[in-house]
Amino acid sequence: MKLYTYFRSSTAYRVRIALNLKGLEYEAVPIHLVRGGGEQKSSAYQAINPQALVPALDVDGQVLTQSLAIMEYLEETHPEPALLPADALGRARVRAIALAIACEIHPINNLRVLHYLAGTLALDQRQKDAWYRHWVESGLLAVEAMLAGRSETGVFCHGDNPGLADCCLLPQVFNAQRFKCDLAAMPTIRRIAANCQELPAFAKAAPEAQPDFE
Amino acid sequence: MKLYTYFRSSTAYRVRIALNLKGLEYEAVPIHLVRGGGEQKSSAYQAINPQALVPALDVDGQVLTQSLAIMEYLEETHPEPALLPADALGRARVRAIALAIACEIHPINNLRVLHYLAGTLALDQRQKDAWYRHWVESGLLAVEAMLAGRSETGVFCHGDNPGLADCCLLPQVFNAQRFKCDLAAMPTIRRIAANCQELPAFAKAAPEAQPDFE
Repeated sequence: MKLYTYFRSSTAYRVRIALNLKGLEYEAVPIHLVRGGGEQKSSAYQAINPQALVPALDVDGQVLTQSLAIMEYLEETHPEPALLPADALGRARVRAIALAIACEIHPINNLRVLHYLAGTLALDQRQKDAWYRHWVESGLLAVEAMLAGRSETGVFCHGDNPGLADCCLLPQVFNAQRFKCDLAAMPTIRRIAANCQELPAFAKAAPEAQPDFE
Repeated sequence: MKLYTYFRSSTAYRVRIALNLKGLEYEAVPIHLVRGGGEQKSSAYQAINPQALVPALDVDGQVLTQSLAIMEYLEETHPEPALLPADALGRARVRAIALAIACEIHPINNLRVLHYLAGTLALDQRQKDAWYRHWVESGLLAVEAMLAGRSETGVFCHGDNPGLADCCLLPQVFNAQRFKCDLAAMPTIRRIAANCQELPAFAKAAPEAQPDFE
């Protein structure tokens, strides 16, 4: 398998964690999202993924896109260790936590949105940072409410094994810390993120551990 | 089952289609997203869904959130008719199309983002409309590229039966038309959306067919 990735992309980071948790080997193909206006916008890369986004996973010449779809594919084709619980309600809860991050937080702060804010709307750095923090902090507060005081929450987002929601949570916390967001009101998220970071599968997937880190 | 819904919410619209395709009865509980500053922000509703979003599906007192997680739950608990194909690669493709809409287009134009643009950033109506159209048009162009000329694409997004991707596509096309987006370069999307609209499951889920339509 070949993973089109960028060290700092939090969506590629999710898939790297999932691949590591499953113990799957892959070749990393770095796509630089900033250099030269962004390699993801090249016609060569858009022939691979017309969405012009990382990650993309090449499995024997078939290209899969969208991090959550890729992780569900890995779960279906390599069921052990499981990233989703066995019961339908538990699976719905884990997916809802993952989607509360993947839909409600990350896209609003994606690189191309930040470019639009700085370019078309001519926002200054302070306004851009305020935008970023607003969506991370309000979004993670909602995730905290989904986790805190719930009996399903354990060492990780759902029980005591890491899963799909944790694959999304740690990269979002990484972004939050990078932009100096205030996580004081999110003790459950901070605890789970710390637990994730102790596992080699998560550590090996971190931006600073990637071949294209700079 | 009780569905917390709003007639014009495109994420609630997705779940209404899925429930109808599965032939499942439900009680609609309207949550007005605009009146009185938004009923979704009330403490009563946040006790149901701390994300302050519709849809939420109450199944025997268990509340499920996030439209894609709800649809996956319906698929797992009521497998027929299937909203996902049987093969893992096909499932990954359908989920990727659904997520290209659910992650890359819809959240950036969600009501609370538009409020931030008009409030904190004091954008005028013309700037807000340009923002809206930019993300719909660029996002749907990427979806068109995932669909056009692909042998997997049929009467619907994947083959000749409606599925998860179609549940996401038609509501997004509805939004695009409401905001007068230019869909000229998306013949495949327009064709599939027209095919969806001919099915009672989609028609019954439309905003104008809802009890809270106004």
